[in-house]
Parts: sequence; C-alpha cells; structure tokens
Amino acid sequence: VRNRASLTGAAREVFAAQGLEAPLDQIARQAGVGIATLYRHFPTRVELIDEILADAVRTYVAIADEALDMDDPWAGLVLYLTETFRLSATNRGITELMSMRLPDSCQTEGFRTELFQKVVQVVSRARDSGAARQDITVEDIVLLTWANAGLVGAAGDIAPTAWQRHLGLVLAGLKASAEGDPIAAPMTPEQVRAAMTARGRECTGNH
Amino acid sequence: VRNRASLTGAAREVFAAQGLEAPLDQIARQAGVGIATLYRHFPTRVELIDEILADAVRTYVAIADEALDMDDPWAGLVLYLTETFRLSATNRGITELMSMRLPDSCQTEGFRTELFQKVVQVVSRARDSGAARQDITVEDIVLLTWANAGLVGAAGDIAPTAWQRHLGLVLAGLKASAEGDPIAAPMTPEQVRAAMTARGRECTGNH
Repeated sequence: VRNRASLTGAAREVFAAQGLEAPLDQIARQAGVGIATLYRHFPTRVELIDEILADAVRTYVAIADEALDMDDPWAGLVLYLTETFRLSATNRGITELMSMRLPDSCQTEGFRTELFQKVVQVVSRARDSGAARQDITVEDIVLLTWANAGLVGAAGDIAPTAWQRHLGLVLAGLKASAEGDPIAAPMTPEQVRAAMTARGRECTGNH
Repeated sequence: VRNRASLTGAAREVFAAQGLEAPLDQIARQAGVGIATLYRHFPTRVELIDEILADAVRTYVAIADEALDMDDPWAGLVLYLTETFRLSATNRGITELMSMRLPDSCQTEGFRTELFQKVVQVVSRARDSGAARQDITVEDIVLLTWANAGLVGAAGDIAPTAWQRHLGLVLAGLKASAEGDPIAAPMTPEQVRAAMTARGRECTGNH
C-alpha cells in the first residue's frame, strides 16, 4: 500500500512536469521502488495514467459545475475556459490527456463523458443567452483547448501567462457581437473522437 | 553533390512529416546513403535543419510581401495568417521551427529577421487603418502561430482544416470592433526570444 502511494505521488509529479510519455523508470526511482514493483502495481502505462488523471478530469467537471451555477451564462463560459486553461498551463499531463482518449474501460473516460455533457450545457447556455455567437459548438471548446496546449508548450516557463492573452483574443471572437463574416465549419464530434483515439494509441502503445 | 541533393530531399520530406527531431539515420536511409555520409555533409543536426528550413522561412517572407502589397491592410493581415497557418498545417518541421531559434550564424535566422520586420509592418498597417484592434503586437502573431501549431498537432490528418476554424474565431477577436474589455498584456519581445532560444537548444542539442 505504501509503495502504491509513493508511486502515484511520483507519477503525479513526473506526468505534470514531463507529460504522459515520461520514462516509467524515472517514476519508479522517484518513488524509491524498483521498476518491477511499478509493473506489479501498474502492468501497463495506461493503468498508471488512468489512476493519476481521473482526478484531473474530475477537477474539470467541478469547474464545469461551477460555471453552470453562475447566473450569467457568458460569465460561466469565461470561467470554464479560464480555469481549465490555467490548470493546463501548469500540468503537462492534463494538457496531453485533453487531446487523447484512453480505452473506454478507464475510469478517466467515465468522468470525461460526464465532463463533455456538462460542457455542452456551458456552451448552449452561453449561446441561448445571446451573449455568445450562435455558431459555436462544444467541439470548438476542444479546439481551443488544443490551441492553448500548443502555446503553453511553446511559451514554457518563460512566458507563463501568455495563455491569458490568447484566451482574451479568443473570447473577444466568441462574443455574439463578433459574429460577422461566415467562418469555417467546426470540427465534427466524429473528428474529435477519432483524433483523440489516434493520439491515445500513440501514447499508451509504449510502456 | 548527388549525395547532398539526395540528403536534402530526404530531409525535407522527413522533417515535414515527423518534425525536426526525426532520426537522422532514417534520413540517411531514405537518401540511400550511410549515416557517415550524412555526417560528412552535415556534421550537426542544426546544419541540416538550417539547409532545409531557410527556404521555408523565405516562403513566409514572400507571403508577408504579398500581404504588404495589398491595398487593404486588414486583408493583408488575414492573408498572412491564413497562408502561413496553411503551410504550418502540412509541414511539421516549419511548425516546430516557428517556436525555436537556431544559432544566429544560421542563414535561417537572417531570413527570420527579415520576416519579423515585415510582419511588424503587416500588423501596424492593420492597426493604423483602424480595422484591427489597437492593442495587438507582432508578438501576438507569434502567439497565434504557436496556438495554431498545437491544434494542428492534435487534430492531425483527421481534422486537417480545423486550423481554419480557430483562425476564424481569432480573426473575429482581432477586429477593431471586438476590442472591448481589457485583456492580458501581450508577450514581450524578450519573452518570445528567450522561449524560442530555449526550445532551439532543446531540439538541436541532440544529434
């Protein structure tokens, strides 16, 4: 039991700092156990990721709940994007998880389904209130999350709040008042699912 | 001479598909030469990157020239972002180069300096015309380029035009009419330079 707690503690830190493809032997070393002990507790990388990241997705669900509790639907959308982007700026593992699916059997995916349903509501409330543009979809939130991940990776520790600037420009573009010329179509739900599934296989296929 | 041409042809394809940290022995194999021949022509990875990517930066310069030739400064900004994001969506090597600096001695950096000066003009024309918001800077163009790179990487071949959707939302936010509540400050020139220098060292430090 104590080994397992050391392993999850070390994995949480290492995944946050280095992402989900971090070397497992480094996690074992940081936990003060051998690699064989790690494999006994977590026979595959995906089981360790699932153990660590399920909590992170639950945190996203809590943010969505908070957004849905707000009287002002636009403020709810702003809160959801701001707080999830903030988390992503400090945790590379969460950021990577948001562009990949784990196998459906993982608890993480159960929480993700719940999250997705709530973010649909965050978006539709903002749209229905007339504050957000009428053509945005939940897939746009996914798209912006991926864009945010890219700039966070590039800006690194050197411009740690650059994500706030991008978010400010994006929010200005999401407002109903910014809806002018037609823009390209959003991603389809099938595209989002397929892209995330492909990346999940890429990451968790190795040990 | 023939070996060198084979090597640069192979490097162009491999860097475009896999990015700038692609294995050099794969480039040699694809060129039909041994790794020793590769190292004879390009003793370090950065020399090979510089040979291949200088052309790419020149293409960006040509796009900036085209943007500056347009009578409508806003249309020029739209053209610059659209065409450079389009290139980035199909060439992972260029995308990565745009978030890292090579050593100053590289010809790529000479073209980049030229590019930067021209993009400053693309942005200031759009601002001065009153079409773009007054608070945008050339560092915002860099930031958006990094964001675009992130979503292109995540959407992959499955949603190959997702970048157009993000760009549409961002352009709506860049318009003068979208300038409302104050947003976070842009990155400073020093932050952009330091972040790109750090990533350049990370990539070209290995062989």
